[in-house]
Amino acid sequence: MIVTIVGTGLIGGSMALVARSSGFAQRVIGVESRSDHAATALSLGLVDEMCDLEEAIERSDFIVLSVPVNAVENLLPRILDNVNKQVVMDVSSIKLGVIECIRNHPNNKRFVPTHPMWGTEYSGPRAASGDAFRNKAAVICNKENCDADALLQVQEFYKYLQMHLVYMDAAEHDIHVAYVSHISHITSFALANTVLEKEKEENAIFELASGGFESTVRLAKSNAATWVPIFMQNRDNVLDVLNEHIHQLKKFKACLEKENYTYLEELITDANKINRIIK
Amino acid sequence: MIVTIVGTGLIGGSMALVARSSGFAQRVIGVESRSDHAATALSLGLVDEMCDLEEAIERSDFIVLSVPVNAVENLLPRILDNVNKQVVMDVSSIKLGVIECIRNHPNNKRFVPTHPMWGTEYSGPRAASGDAFRNKAAVICNKENCDADALLQVQEFYKYLQMHLVYMDAAEHDIHVAYVSHISHITSFALANTVLEKEKEENAIFELASGGFESTVRLAKSNAATWVPIFMQNRDNVLDVLNEHIHQLKKFKACLEKENYTYLEELITDANKINRIIK
Repeated sequence: MIVTIVGTGLIGGSMALVARSSGFAQRVIGVESRSDHAATALSLGLVDEMCDLEEAIERSDFIVLSVPVNAVENLLPRILDNVNKQVVMDVSSIKLGVIECIRNHPNNKRFVPTHPMWGTEYSGPRAASGDAFRNKAAVICNKENCDADALLQVQEFYKYLQMHLVYMDAAEHDIHVAYVSHISHITSFALANTVLEKEKEENAIFELASGGFESTVRLAKSNAATWVPIFMQNRDNVLDVLNEHIHQLKKFKACLEKENYTYLEELITDANKINRIIK
Repeated sequence: MIVTIVGTGLIGGSMALVARSSGFAQRVIGVESRSDHAATALSLGLVDEMCDLEEAIERSDFIVLSVPVNAVENLLPRILDNVNKQVVMDVSSIKLGVIECIRNHPNNKRFVPTHPMWGTEYSGPRAASGDAFRNKAAVICNKENCDADALLQVQEFYKYLQMHLVYMDAAEHDIHVAYVSHISHITSFALANTVLEKEKEENAIFELASGGFESTVRLAKSNAATWVPIFMQNRDNVLDVLNEHIHQLKKFKACLEKENYTYLEELITDANKINRIIK
């Protein structure tokens, strides 16, 4: 199987590594618009070669689109223009917009919309990892709209990545990720700005910051090129969750202002129930 | 050296383990008001024996007070009533209130106020770890108010724990921890409540929740008995930081509402600067 990875950053680069090491791909072709990333991906051996998009599509069996979601909407129709029997999948964090942009494309059944639930706060080919994905969930959306053979190959690919599959309606997926991923990024960005804004004695922070701070703020290192398009496309869901989150924070604020420590204790005990969800 | 640990939970239990394994303590006596914790701490071998507070003080050289901060204010004056040459230290997350409660105590120079910057979201003796503390910072506050020999012994103790020492004014410490610890806990509690409130299909969260969500929400498992007294005593500082944090979140909200993605990108790029502080 010849696999093309369009976008050889954190996710695409990791998929390139695991696709080959697992035996799913015999050869991996990279397509990369940034020349610095292309050079790095080649020198790290993430891909066997780089070539342009049209040639890569023609020579491939399986095409993974792993670029920021605004670029997906630009590239995906162009890719589908050129496929016949190839399978195309994306890895975008939101799915409705992606599906919408090829709704009327004649080859849209060759496309399988997916979202592997793995990532880190780092980006670019140097962040790629051969240990990625394993034992995490991968979502496949609206599978009823895909050709059976295309769906089967994508299911096979995720088996090689050792991910377990979850099937979901695209609109539901976009709501869920607002809760389990997008809001975490916003709180982390806002927390970083809170600390950087008020606390000028950075040495004191550096000395005192312990594991708790690091874990809540590490996502704030995530890059704008990835996240602005995600927030843009999932705007309504993210706004709903963000409003609820601010409302929840205001309950803590009110407890402190009114010195209502009984209610504060109740809020914390409620929050402890999250241990039903994360172990 | 005979060491007494008052409160054999996460921090006290870990200190008991490391005090003995490092050779600082030849014998560790536990004092524990909860009989279930006392039995667990003994059966796990965290301490050599349990006895009551007065007897433990009399037989010890070095006393570590490791109970919620509201209990410190209750116990510390009683402990100081009974010491002569012994050294007493606490490990509370906030320092002004603790120092205040023994301001006029005749033996207050035997007390060294400290705060080791290590913890997890778990509590109780089963959460104690022999790998705790190493390479983290420990804060000692207002050292000029301590007897020289008491200070020296506490410094020595933290050397055995392999922590590096930071000296700080108590009021400054309480401001800093509001930024690097207390606000992280509030955002995490509030994030847990946001998700639990709106998202009733918990299976979907469980399937999709990946590393990012886990790291921002894990502190939400922290227990109310520890944290309510901390928020209570550091109320003014925590309110300042919480107000700033809500203000920062509202900037993200305004960007989305007004679809001002240029400013959203700027906010994220600003937040990325946190990588100067956490690597």
